[in-house]
Amino acid sequence: MPPVETIEWTGRDVRIIDQTLLPGKTRFLAIKDEKAMWEAIKKLRVRGAPAIGVAAGYGVFLAVRAAKPGSGAQAVRVALRAADYLATSRPTAVNLFWALDRCRAMVRGLPDAATAEEVLAATLAEALAIHESDRATCAAIGRHGAPLLDGVDGVLTHCNAGALATGGMGTALALIYEAAKKRRFTVYADETRPLLQGARLTAWELAQAGIDTVLITDSMAATVLSQGRVQAVVVGADRIAANGDTANKVGTMPLAILAAHFKVPLYVAAPLSTVDLSTGDGSGIPVEERGAEEVTSFGGTRVAPKGVRVFSPAFDVTPAKYVSAIVTEAGVLRPPYKRSLKEAFRAK
Amino acid sequence: MPPVETIEWTGRDVRIIDQTLLPGKTRFLAIKDEKAMWEAIKKLRVRGAPAIGVAAGYGVFLAVRAAKPGSGAQAVRVALRAADYLATSRPTAVNLFWALDRCRAMVRGLPDAATAEEVLAATLAEALAIHESDRATCAAIGRHGAPLLDGVDGVLTHCNAGALATGGMGTALALIYEAAKKRRFTVYADETRPLLQGARLTAWELAQAGIDTVLITDSMAATVLSQGRVQAVVVGADRIAANGDTANKVGTMPLAILAAHFKVPLYVAAPLSTVDLSTGDGSGIPVEERGAEEVTSFGGTRVAPKGVRVFSPAFDVTPAKYVSAIVTEAGVLRPPYKRSLKEAFRAK
Repeated sequence: MPPVETIEWTGRDVRIIDQTLLPGKTRFLAIKDEKAMWEAIKKLRVRGAPAIGVAAGYGVFLAVRAAKPGSGAQAVRVALRAADYLATSRPTAVNLFWALDRCRAMVRGLPDAATAEEVLAATLAEALAIHESDRATCAAIGRHGAPLLDGVDGVLTHCNAGALATGGMGTALALIYEAAKKRRFTVYADETRPLLQGARLTAWELAQAGIDTVLITDSMAATVLSQGRVQAVVVGADRIAANGDTANKVGTMPLAILAAHFKVPLYVAAPLSTVDLSTGDGSGIPVEERGAEEVTSFGGTRVAPKGVRVFSPAFDVTPAKYVSAIVTEAGVLRPPYKRSLKEAFRAK
Repeated sequence: MPPVETIEWTGRDVRIIDQTLLPGKTRFLAIKDEKAMWEAIKKLRVRGAPAIGVAAGYGVFLAVRAAKPGSGAQAVRVALRAADYLATSRPTAVNLFWALDRCRAMVRGLPDAATAEEVLAATLAEALAIHESDRATCAAIGRHGAPLLDGVDGVLTHCNAGALATGGMGTALALIYEAAKKRRFTVYADETRPLLQGARLTAWELAQAGIDTVLITDSMAATVLSQGRVQAVVVGADRIAANGDTANKVGTMPLAILAAHFKVPLYVAAPLSTVDLSTGDGSGIPVEERGAEEVTSFGGTRVAPKGVRVFSPAFDVTPAKYVSAIVTEAGVLRPPYKRSLKEAFRAK
């Protein structure tokens, strides 16, 4: 089966899977305006850096449509305001800003004489282009990266960098989907506390695609590595600095240090839109802290005593030296990343 | 406030806190026979290696009482059979076997003329002695180990090696309770998936004792270490091999590797009854695998898709080289542990 479509323009509205309800319920939401899209991004109904970029693109279009602007100039103002507004939904994912910058540049470049209808059509076209580009990017990442999994019996992944996280077949999971076309192997999926994207999303989408999956808690990954059950670790990224330092879901950095310790390569799979050359290294990446309730309760069940303090960074930063390769749509990049990332952008 | 009493002989029955219901409900169970004690150990209503040993000791006594034996010889047979039965409740915790061996040796050493009443009284006396010895052991561990925390602003701990895990003030947490008598510092508690002993038990008992506690997911420990928020890690142990390799709750081994990576000392605090000199190194320690449902659901909420495979080792083994010291009732032991452990036993 092809991987699930996490976000789709139906011709009437933007349909997303509410990922906060998976795997218990598969519920689709019809998003009709930018406020609903902002809420969907903020509440992680749509999540994963590339999918957030795609969602934000559609959000700008939906804002213009909902505003029913009386003139092209007004439509442009609505689009720019929507872009600023949508940028406030999540602070770390650079794809969000990248997609919104694309939309801003596009509307600013429209002729002054453009009508409201033309601006509206242009924002939809831009959103569809961002989406299609993401689909192609995922496919290219899968194609370039799959050979890294030649001969493996097991692969470990963290969080969800799959079809549910992108407008296509995923980033980290694109390697897996592509490699699985040729031969069978086992994917160990970290459950990924606090929000359990691995248990809820990765295990779900891999099972849908018929891939042998074993779920573990994050704390069991070291045992899996130490016992030689996996020969590769593949993760996505939320932001990659110019030197290759990689911000990704909290738990990635210890996984990278442990993988190096047990001599298992760790690959980061991400589109070039995740790379932020203006950030020199990981120390410049802001890390979102999230609310206590994600740690103190789950599924309505309180698991910690009332009033306990919580520290909950959403991401951590993996130093580039623990990243064996960065797989992008431009190919497999190797250290030193300062050079290979710059070259990949130049070739683009 | 003094730490909670997790297990207590009331004069009529053995009262335990049902730890599976904490922190939501504080319910005490009156255990009346060895079957109920076996179930309580198996289902983790009472858990923590030292507490399991204490519970098993009481279990032998309860078996003899419940059997209403007609003769001393029959009482001895019941006691020995109960010891064999209780030994099947958990496979890894060596304290269980140690406590049951103590009970076996004691009843075997009773005079042939001992009456059923005398055997019964002897089994109760033995259980109370095991319990009192555990209390004294915890206090000694706290006293010896507290100076290791001199000057720290933060301490990280995993799972629950506290009052709830022992017949006294705990092992790892004994250091913390003792050091906290002098000065304030912050304890970071790993939530400890899958059964969340850190969130449910450690955060609860530390809060009861007025200690500043910050709850994190297991995957956030590396961030806490990398940011210098803690200057020590303290954990308990389920079994320590002759060379110092330490089996403890899954997630301890990666924590030890990460602590070494970030140059933060990791201390194992455990009674000498946790040390198994007959096991040369960690490769000889059997690691219990637990059922899938502990990973796939929590509090009745399913968090993973149906039918997903799970790998769930309950423990992992930390190589001795990542253990900065082993704190026992005999003092603070330093590497090489093969020698220091042997000497600690000789001095006993």
